[in-house]
Parts: sequence; structure tokens; C-alpha cells
Amino acid sequence: MQVIRSPIALRSWVKRVKKRGETVGFVPTMGALHEGHLSLVRAARRECDKVVVSIFVNPLQFGPKEDFNRYPKPFSDDKILLQKEKADLLFFPSVRTMVPDVFLTDVTVGCLTDYLCGPFRPGHFEGVATVCAKLFNLVVPDAVYFGQKDYQQTRVVAQMLKDLDFPIRMKVVPTVREKNGLAMSSRNRYLKGSERESALLLYRALSEGKAAIQKGERNPSRVLSRMKAVLGGPKVKVQYLSVADPSTLAPLSRIKGSVLLAGAAYVGKTRLIDNLLVRI
Amino acid sequence: MQVIRSPIALRSWVKRVKKRGETVGFVPTMGALHEGHLSLVRAARRECDKVVVSIFVNPLQFGPKEDFNRYPKPFSDDKILLQKEKADLLFFPSVRTMVPDVFLTDVTVGCLTDYLCGPFRPGHFEGVATVCAKLFNLVVPDAVYFGQKDYQQTRVVAQMLKDLDFPIRMKVVPTVREKNGLAMSSRNRYLKGSERESALLLYRALSEGKAAIQKGERNPSRVLSRMKAVLGGPKVKVQYLSVADPSTLAPLSRIKGSVLLAGAAYVGKTRLIDNLLVRI
Repeated sequence: MQVIRSPIALRSWVKRVKKRGETVGFVPTMGALHEGHLSLVRAARRECDKVVVSIFVNPLQFGPKEDFNRYPKPFSDDKILLQKEKADLLFFPSVRTMVPDVFLTDVTVGCLTDYLCGPFRPGHFEGVATVCAKLFNLVVPDAVYFGQKDYQQTRVVAQMLKDLDFPIRMKVVPTVREKNGLAMSSRNRYLKGSERESALLLYRALSEGKAAIQKGERNPSRVLSRMKAVLGGPKVKVQYLSVADPSTLAPLSRIKGSVLLAGAAYVGKTRLIDNLLVRI
Repeated sequence: MQVIRSPIALRSWVKRVKKRGETVGFVPTMGALHEGHLSLVRAARRECDKVVVSIFVNPLQFGPKEDFNRYPKPFSDDKILLQKEKADLLFFPSVRTMVPDVFLTDVTVGCLTDYLCGPFRPGHFEGVATVCAKLFNLVVPDAVYFGQKDYQQTRVVAQMLKDLDFPIRMKVVPTVREKNGLAMSSRNRYLKGSERESALLLYRALSEGKAAIQKGERNPSRVLSRMKAVLGGPKVKVQYLSVADPSTLAPLSRIKGSVLLAGAAYVGKTRLIDNLLVRI
């Protein structure tokens, strides 16, 4: 596996690959890789001739009070994991390269960012969309792979790909969970002692909502109440819970067709998100 | 010359061309072609294997009170002109194709749009940048060609290309003028009778400013006064005149290095723009 830091070197690698007519699958990450990321790499490995993974902790998608500085950066471990998965190229650009002092362009995706994490993380999805547009133009992939855990992100990026006519297929890969159900997340590393147990409550709440819907509940308020009851204790501080349209992300007034159950919660200082898609 | 309306057909044309290793030069236009556009096509013809021209009157870049509906659309004439210039492909998409009902993404370029036409045409450059991003992703050109007459547009698009790492070279081609100096513009078609003579005053004013600088004037206010004097009559309504930094487009407080002299003015109901670059 090659490790490339410079966009110029990346471009010439891409040029050589494309000249041979090979397809490129791309997994953009912020590093601190876990089984969720690796499942994306494996999907790309199955479907494309070449697999590119990027590791870039994107400052544009962190708010001023968020965890940019303490975000885990275990680069050597990440590299070993990617070598095992037979990734072909790891793109690992510097912040300076990706976001130089004069950087004036913003890609915004409206409406979809009005819901769920959007109001709590102003500027976050603009940062995601802008850096994704950059990475896509650098890597020139045929397909990109994102995890369902960041469901809103998958919707924002998919909408950008469609609206701006990027010639790129998007693949959303199911959330990978620990045996107990906890969604894999780089931020799980922050959890200490009993916090891992508390973190599980978010998944339990979403599962409770799912079970209610599967048993016939069609009133979103009652589904929300069931989920909130699970999260009622002092160990978890709910930021939001939503029974939403999986396409627009807007809250549903009546449950029919597919439903997205999504939530964000703090366990100690750690913000966690999770979601379940329910098809009825 | 092939005429293609559908993005899908365009994509397969592009794929074939790229497979052969040929380079693509792209001239995005809103039609109503004149010698200015044709000089862009000729530059692309000289430098690239294939030349793609698009004609798309982009609704996103017109304000609600602007001339979107009356913008000239002489498609058959345009087609003949492009055939003469040996363009390979004319991409002529529908508005519905380019801007479907659900269209949520915006590309904004900050700072550069605070000056010159920016404040008078809110949303204009966002519309330009967004549709350019779409067209660039559809045509996948190696180089794009823009006219210096729309100087601010060239800066906005160049900045977007740089910030978002589009693998595309940008060429800015000098403004083509009538013998009397009037900058060629599709909107010159709107000018009736004596308005063509009045329209010339904008160019005369900019030339007066240029002459003053070349004679040693280094005070932007005095250069502005000289330009305003030319435009003092009742036939032209000045929207703005600026002695600006050609890179940031901000007004200069002292003239040194390169200078952009730019202005916009109404002649009757027709809004015209022009600019001169002065290198000292």
C-alpha cells in the first residue's frame, strides 16, 4: 500500500490507474479506524480494481467547541489495518494542503441540514460537503463508500453528488455494531469505564422504537415517548431523537413506508449518534 | 458537430473520448454567440483534441427582476457559428435537466463576490459557480475557456477550481471589441438606435482611467473622478466604477502593480459591464 501526502502525487497515481482503464473505489475517513471503516474498505475491495482510503481530520466540519484537537489520530495503527485489507493507496494530506489560508469556496446542501444533527452542529455539513467535493476531485473515484451510522451525512453527500452531477456512484454500507449492539464509532475510544454501558442505551432506545413500529404503532409521538423512556436516566443526555422521513430527514407526522429512527446523545463529554432504518 | 441534450448521452461521449486519451476543451456559454465566444472556441480548438461548447441560459444566475425571460436565444444561428468553428460537441441541456425541482446544493465563493457586480446581483455568482461545477462534472474537461469581459466571473470560477481541486486548467481570453471599442456582449442586441453610441461611453471612461494611470496618476479617487466625468451625461446610468485589486477585487487605496478598472452601467434598460487590466 502506497501512502501519499501530496495532491500532485495523488493526481499522477490516479492518471496512471485511469489510463489502464481500472476502476477506483474510495473510502474517505477521519482515521481512528474501526470495523465500520474496514467494512467500507472491504466493499470497495470487492467492487473496484483499486481502493483508495483517505485519512483527513477535516477542521471545516468541527465547531469551535467540538473535539477537533482531541480527535484520536492513531496513524500507525490505521496504516496497519489498511494494509491488512489490501487497500492500494492511503491519501493522508496535511490540513495546510487541504485548507490553505485563502480558501473561499463553500458547498452547502440545503433542507437536509435543517434536521437531526444540523441545528446542533452549524457549519458541520458544509464542511463535510466541501471537503468531500475536494477529495472526490482529487481521487476521481468511480464509487465512494459511506457508513449508514452517519445517515445524515450519507444523504447530504448523495444529494451533492446528484445536484452537482459528480460521475460517482455512492454506496451506503450498514452500520457495524459491537456484539452488544453499540454502533462502532471512533469516538467510542473516549468512553471510560461504565460509560460504554451507558452508551448502549441510545441503541436500546432506537430498538425500542423499532419494536413499537413493528408491533403496529403508527403515531410518531408515541414512538418517541417509548424511546425517551429508555433514555430517561441520568447517565445519558439526549440531544435529539427523531422519527423521520429517510429521504428528506424531516420529522414524520404519521408513520408509513420507511422510517428513520435517529438520535444523538452525550455520555459524559462524548457525543454519540446512531440510527435505525425501519421498513414496514 | 454533434448536438447532445441529455447528460447521459454526454457522459458516454466523454467516456469514449477519454478512453482514446484525447483532451477536452470546454467553453460554457449562455448562447447568443458573438466574436467573443468564438475567440474562446478558437483557443480551445488550438489547444485541445476535442472542443465542447455548452449553451445553457442558467436561471440560477439571474435575479427575479433580471432579463432571464428576454435573454436572446438564437439557437439555429449559434449552431451554425459553432459548426464553422469546428466545435465537436454542442451540449444544450434543458432547464429541467440542469435544475430539477429538488435541487438543494449551492456552491458559494466568498469575498470575491463582495465587490463589483456582487452586491448588485445577489445570488448571481452562486448561480454561476453552482452551474459551472455541474457542467465541469458532466463534460470533464482538461481546460475551460472564459472571456475577460466577465472578469469577476473568471476570478470566482478560478477560485472554485482551486479550492475544490477540480483537475481543470482555466484559460482567460482577452475581451473582443467592436472596432469602436465596445466590448462584445450578447446583451448588445438589446441596444436600440443611439444606445449603441451611449454604450461606448463605459469603455471610453475605463480608457480615460487607464490613460491617467499610464500618465502617472496613482490616486484611485482621482482616477475614479476622471472616469466618472466621461459618464456624466444623462444617457448612461452608472451602477459602479471601481479601481480594484485584480486578484481580490477589493478597491485599491493606492495604485501599484496591476490594476483592474471595472464598471457596470445601464443604457436604457440594458445593463452592460466592461473592464480593463492595467499593468504598470
